[in-house]
Formats: sequence, C-alpha cells, structure tokens
Amino acid sequence: MVNLQKFGVCRCTPCRSAPASRASKSSHLRPTRRVTVSVRCVSSSPAADTAYTTKVSRNANIAKLQAGYLFPEIARRRTAHLLKHPGAKIISLGIGDTTEPIPEVITNAMAERAHALSTVDGYSGYGAEQGEKKLRAAIAATYYADSGIEETDIFVSDGAKCDISRLQVLFGSSVKIAVQDPSYPAYVDSSVIMGQTDLYQQDVQKYGNIEYMRCSPENGFFPDLSSVPRTDIIFFCSPNNPTGAAASREQLTQLVKFAKNNGSIIVYDSAYAMYISDDSPKSIFEIPGAKEVAIETASFSKYAGFTGVRLGWTVIPKELLFSDGHPVAKDFNRIVCTSFNGASTISQAGGLGCLSPEGLKAMQDVVGFYKENTDIIVETFTSLGYNVYGAKNAPYVWVHFPGRNSWDVFAEILEKAHVVTTPGSGFGPGGEGFVRISAFGHRENIIEAARRLKELYK
Amino acid sequence: MVNLQKFGVCRCTPCRSAPASRASKSSHLRPTRRVTVSVRCVSSSPAADTAYTTKVSRNANIAKLQAGYLFPEIARRRTAHLLKHPGAKIISLGIGDTTEPIPEVITNAMAERAHALSTVDGYSGYGAEQGEKKLRAAIAATYYADSGIEETDIFVSDGAKCDISRLQVLFGSSVKIAVQDPSYPAYVDSSVIMGQTDLYQQDVQKYGNIEYMRCSPENGFFPDLSSVPRTDIIFFCSPNNPTGAAASREQLTQLVKFAKNNGSIIVYDSAYAMYISDDSPKSIFEIPGAKEVAIETASFSKYAGFTGVRLGWTVIPKELLFSDGHPVAKDFNRIVCTSFNGASTISQAGGLGCLSPEGLKAMQDVVGFYKENTDIIVETFTSLGYNVYGAKNAPYVWVHFPGRNSWDVFAEILEKAHVVTTPGSGFGPGGEGFVRISAFGHRENIIEAARRLKELYK
Repeated sequence: MVNLQKFGVCRCTPCRSAPASRASKSSHLRPTRRVTVSVRCVSSSPAADTAYTTKVSRNANIAKLQAGYLFPEIARRRTAHLLKHPGAKIISLGIGDTTEPIPEVITNAMAERAHALSTVDGYSGYGAEQGEKKLRAAIAATYYADSGIEETDIFVSDGAKCDISRLQVLFGSSVKIAVQDPSYPAYVDSSVIMGQTDLYQQDVQKYGNIEYMRCSPENGFFPDLSSVPRTDIIFFCSPNNPTGAAASREQLTQLVKFAKNNGSIIVYDSAYAMYISDDSPKSIFEIPGAKEVAIETASFSKYAGFTGVRLGWTVIPKELLFSDGHPVAKDFNRIVCTSFNGASTISQAGGLGCLSPEGLKAMQDVVGFYKENTDIIVETFTSLGYNVYGAKNAPYVWVHFPGRNSWDVFAEILEKAHVVTTPGSGFGPGGEGFVRISAFGHRENIIEAARRLKELYK
Repeated sequence: MVNLQKFGVCRCTPCRSAPASRASKSSHLRPTRRVTVSVRCVSSSPAADTAYTTKVSRNANIAKLQAGYLFPEIARRRTAHLLKHPGAKIISLGIGDTTEPIPEVITNAMAERAHALSTVDGYSGYGAEQGEKKLRAAIAATYYADSGIEETDIFVSDGAKCDISRLQVLFGSSVKIAVQDPSYPAYVDSSVIMGQTDLYQQDVQKYGNIEYMRCSPENGFFPDLSSVPRTDIIFFCSPNNPTGAAASREQLTQLVKFAKNNGSIIVYDSAYAMYISDDSPKSIFEIPGAKEVAIETASFSKYAGFTGVRLGWTVIPKELLFSDGHPVAKDFNRIVCTSFNGASTISQAGGLGCLSPEGLKAMQDVVGFYKENTDIIVETFTSLGYNVYGAKNAPYVWVHFPGRNSWDVFAEILEKAHVVTTPGSGFGPGGEGFVRISAFGHRENIIEAARRLKELYK
C-alpha cells in the first residue's frame, strides 16, 4: 500500500481550479520529489481523507472573503483568455498599472544610491521605520506646506495599499468602517480580514457591519451624508478609484464636519491627487479642522510609475486623538516599528528624486501624458453615445452601461476587443452597470483600444 | 477667550517626554501655524480638557504593549547617551544592523534594474505580489533543492519581520502561540497586537496566553518539549536570535514530531542560517515531515547587507493544511494580495544578484567577515572569565552576567565603554542576566569595543 504521508495535495488542473477546501478533501494525490511512484488522479478514493491536517483552525474572517482579490481575479481571466486566443493582442486597461518609463532624473537617483551601498561611506543598513528624515521633510514641504503638517506627521511606506492594511491593524477588530460604494476593494477586504465585519450577504452583495455610502451620477458621486449613520472610520478616496470623481472643497468641508460631529476618523486616500485639473483640494488637510479627524494616505505609484518600486506615505497629524486622548500617530508608530522595517532605501532615494525640482516637473509630464490618454478614452465612449464620468481629475474613465451586468460587459470587451477593463461591480454593488477603463497605457495601445471599442459598439 | 479648537497638543519637551495619554490631557497647547497668538505652557489649566478627541476607541490590544518596541527603545537610549556625552565615540553592537558594503555584483544588478526602469523595454509596473517567478525559482533551487520545496511555495517579501506580522494576520486572534524564551520580540509583540494574548503580567514579565519555552544553558538552549503544552503556533528561530544557538538535526526532528503530534504549525525563522558552521540544518524542511507542519521565513538582510534594501521570503508548502483541510498557502496568498504589493522590483533584482554564482560567493565572504568579528568578541569575554554562548553558528554572542540585571549591564557598558549592546531581558524573561553582543561592525570598531570591554571588566 502507498504511504499516504508522503503525498500532498494534487496540483493537476481540475484540482487547482476547484475551490481549495474541496481540493484538499479530494483524492488527487501528488508524489513528492523523493517518491518515484507515479499516482494518477482517481476520483472518490478515500485516500485523501487520511492526508495530514494540523489542528489549527482556519481564520474565520478570511473564510468570509468572497472569491479572489479583484485584480488577481482579472489577471486570471486575462490569462484564460490568452489560452483560448493564443494570438490575441491583448490591451490591458484593467488593473491601473503604469506603463511609461520612470523619468531618468528619478532612476538615476536610485541607481546612484544602489551603487553607493557598495561603498564604505555610502553604505547604510536599517533606516528609520518611519522613513528617512530628509524624505519626510521633502514630502511635508512639497505637499503640505500650507496645511501645518510637519515632517514628524509623515510615515513613509512601501505603498498606500500596504499602509491601509497597517491602519486596519492599528484600528483592530472592534471598529466599524464606512466606504464609498463603489470603492477600491482593499478597504473592504482588509476590514473583513481584521474581523470588523459580519458575513457576506449575497442578496445585497455587501458584508454585514460595513456602511456602504452610495456614490452615483445622481448624487454627483458624493454620498448623501444626512442618511449615513455614524461609523468609527470613514475610508474616502478622492479623486476616487474607480469613479474618477474628485470631491470639491465644499464637499470635503461637509465630510470633515460630518466626521467631527460623529467623532469619526477619515482615512483619506489621495493616491491620484496629482491628476486633479480643477480647483478640488489635493489633500484633506486643505480643509480647516481636518487634522483632528483625518489620516491621509498617498503614493508615488501613479505619479512616477512607482507601482513596482514601492513608495508611498501616510500622514497622521499629532492632533488626531483616540477617545481617551491617546494620539493615533503614537500607536501607528508602534505598528510600523513592530510590523515594518521601512521602505527600501533605494526607493526612498527615488522619492527624493521625485521631489527635486526636475523630478516634480518630470512627474507632471508623466501625469499629463496619461491625462491625454484619458481624453482619448472619453472621446471614444462619448462619440458612441455612452455616458462617461470621472476622467477630468483622474486616470480612470467610468463608463455607464445602463441595465447591463458589469462582468458581462467586461467579458464582452475582452472576448470581442481583446481589451481588459475592470468590471464596476468588483468595486461594490454601487458599481454594477459600470466598467472602469484605466488610462495607463502606451499611446498606440490606447488608440488601438479606442479603435476596437468603436468597432465593437458602433 | 482663545478659541481652543485652534490648538493641538503641545510639543514642548516635558509634554513630549510624558506618556502620551497624560500629555494629551495636559494643558500644554501649541498654536497651529495659522494662529499668531503665542501661548505659553501653563500647568493645571483646564484648557486641554476641551481638546478635541474623536469617539474612536483606542485598540485595546495595542494598549497592552509594554514600553516601546525593543530596538527603537535602545536607539532612544543611545541618543540620550550622546546628548549627555557629546564627544563619545559610540560603537553600536546593539540592534544587529549590518555595516559592510553590499558586494558590487549585487548593487550593480540593482542599479542596472533601476536604469532599465527608465527605458520602454525595461520598464515594469506592478510585479506579482508573490514575487518575480525567476527569483522564486532561484530561491527554491538555491536553498531547497533537496527538500521538495517548489517555486510556487515561495512568497518573496520585503523582509522577515514584515512577513511575521502578515503571518499573524493570517492566523488571526484566536490562536495561541509559543515562543522560545528568550526570542526576537516581533513574535510576541505581533501576537499582542493581533489580540492573541491577555494582559502583561508584571510579576513574571510575560503576557498571558503565550507559552514561553525557556531556553537556557541548562537545556542547551533547546526547550524541554515534554513540559510544553500544545499551542496552535510555535515560533522557532534557529540559529536563534538572541542566544545564537542553532538546533541540531536531532532536536529539530523532535520539534517536528512534537508539532505533528499536537497538530501545531511551526513558524521557523531561518534568517541566520548562512551563519551555521557545523552540520545543523539550515532549513526546517531538511527534516522529514516538516512540510506538513512548518512555515519558514528567511531574509537576505544578514547575508548581503540588505537591512535597508528590504528583501526576504517565506515558504509555505502546499502540504500544510488547516484543520478543515484548507491549504494555509492559499489564505496567505490572499493576505499578500490584499495587504502587500510585492517587494520592490529593484530589491528583487538584487536578490537575483545575490543568488548568482558570484553573488553567493560574495555573500559567503560577507558572512565570513562577520564570523571573524564573532571570534574576537568571544575571545574578549572568554578571556575575562565570562561564559559566552552562541557565536559558533550565528552573528550574536550571548554573554552571561550571573545575578545581574540585563538593563543595568547594558547601561554600565554604554556609560563606561560607550558601546551599545542589547539587554537580554528585552527578549523575554529568560534573557535576564544576559547581554547580546552583535558581531555586525567594522573590524576596527569591533577591536576597539573589545579593548574598551577588556578595560571595563578586567
């Protein structure tokens, strides 16, 4: 008889595509490298029931999560499409991944730092967990000079997504959050993982104990705060991902007042602030009183093409206090020191390059390029008679397909135009009927995608 | 009357050094930049009681944490010492921070990648959250060729410390952990933050609901497993930080058997494996059966001087299953995709440089250099009549000062020799009476520290 302890879970295609809990109970076995016996997948064998399992319970909060995280799921469908159509020239306007080279003034700064690390004088080991003093000061001076945010309020990070999860660890499992609906899925998913929510409710496509603040064309993509109950935390992204809507000064003033009246903390995601063309605020801290109720998280990803380089920051003003008077920044500092060791020093050198006069100019050019792409996409759908939103202050175009299912539209565009988009419902039930088109792409790809879309929907 | 809403918490020295919860209730007010009125610190004014606080409760788990995270606390004491003795030539053998330049073959790889990012062909945006396929394959081939660990079992990270916290998020708040006592403080502190523990018990200097497995000279720094109750998770670091002890093959076989009998998961921290000189296993996966009960976390930090570059990895074999049969790797993948966006691509290029034939040789040289430092430190304390442990397989020397308080010895060495060490009790109650000396330092500093220590304890 075969020694079953020597076998793991089968990695054959049927098993891998099955939900893991089923796969693990299946009888599909795979020999380890040391075993030469070949075992074929045989259904309904009792063998796998004896596969060793630990006695550690799976984290029930993670079990609540639905399907995969949105973007890996889209990548999976893209791969499946490519398998089906091996010759297809797929154009990806889905995940929002930057495509244009990083300006040389910035990469030179990173290469220089890398080389310096091999010299006695230029070598440095652990950096401060909160980031290099010079970079924190440059961020404060560049983006917050008029709002009283200081160097010590800035925590440099390896990106906004990473900091969102660290903020959730900071808040813990007892808080209740509100999100814009639709919104970037990391807010909701990290809330589920931390145990802040109840189970997913299939009928409404929402998790229990999260407040979904509907943002639609009807309310100008700004929630009707008079009907929103108090929550501890309010995640608010502006310019918004996915709708592209930037909140006005008046709206943000309302939001800060709402938070202050309720004693809530706003986590303001300003990752797209540099895309703002009108006079919408680029930071929540432009609003008087925000320092007592808001955290801001930001990123170099979409300005300098740092999606792979990994660099962002979070601002926690020292004026922001928990109900017992304890400064929020002090606890976040403890999280950062315990769970993080600082962003890569090479990336931080790149951040300093970004904030040099030449770097700022170069980033403006990159942003300007993507904004031109946005115009092309807007023109495409407008000429086809679709209502489009966002775009003006963001690298995202939010296209309305009234009465249609987002994933169906996603599939149709992928199948017929070989263009990857993002289904609006992936951002929450409020995104149903919409598709997000990202403006991150080489110009020729944007033009070609526009051509195919015009052909598809003419 | 002054409008108190315009004032934040005072940043004057007395307020900043006071515990934050007190400071926030104090009356020390600071005008924001927009207010020109100058307000002096005045004690016992009722003013600060009206400072705005949110209604969000502080996370009770974070409130359980004692003092600061160990290493920032040591940095603080170092800074205080320097203020007191401005001319002192402090030698830091505390935090375990690498000091030697990164070999050029590795920095060249990083600089080359940085430059490539400014070209159309060389640019890349988001990488896979799990790391570049080529790097995952190289790690599997270099370190796990004989143990059946595959590329897909490897998750590339921005460092072991970061992954430890992500693993704790994976496990959630319901598990109970065991740690070696003494041990690297990130295991315990991340457990507290996740809500796995009860309050800190001052009398025994332990958190409730953590199993501290005593490791002392008496048991050869390997716990008496016959007296250890079952826990869900066992954090085990070998070669150990701080004791420097590497577990033998026989001991690790015992550990795996213990975990398997209890259905526990071992989180094996092998960050110092390359320092092993004898035939102790360099990976838990050298032990048969470990793939069903163990996770391994590792790092380039101490091999290539990557403490600031940030690159590590975690191995979760597909054979490791929760009690319901769900693969642990599948949930970790979800955490990584939701809370992380991959290590910097430039750091990953450095990792590929490390694992090239020249890179491996260069890392061996770096490790060899620090091991020579270890010999100098061992000789110093041995010649002074002290019992020293570790050192043989690790960059740490664990020096016994019987009957003395670790922080007192730390203070004595800092005060009289201007040498920063790490007090053993910072790693748990089992470290009391010991001091950890790090071998990371320039040769001349190690020699000078040895001279001062010989002078101090002659």
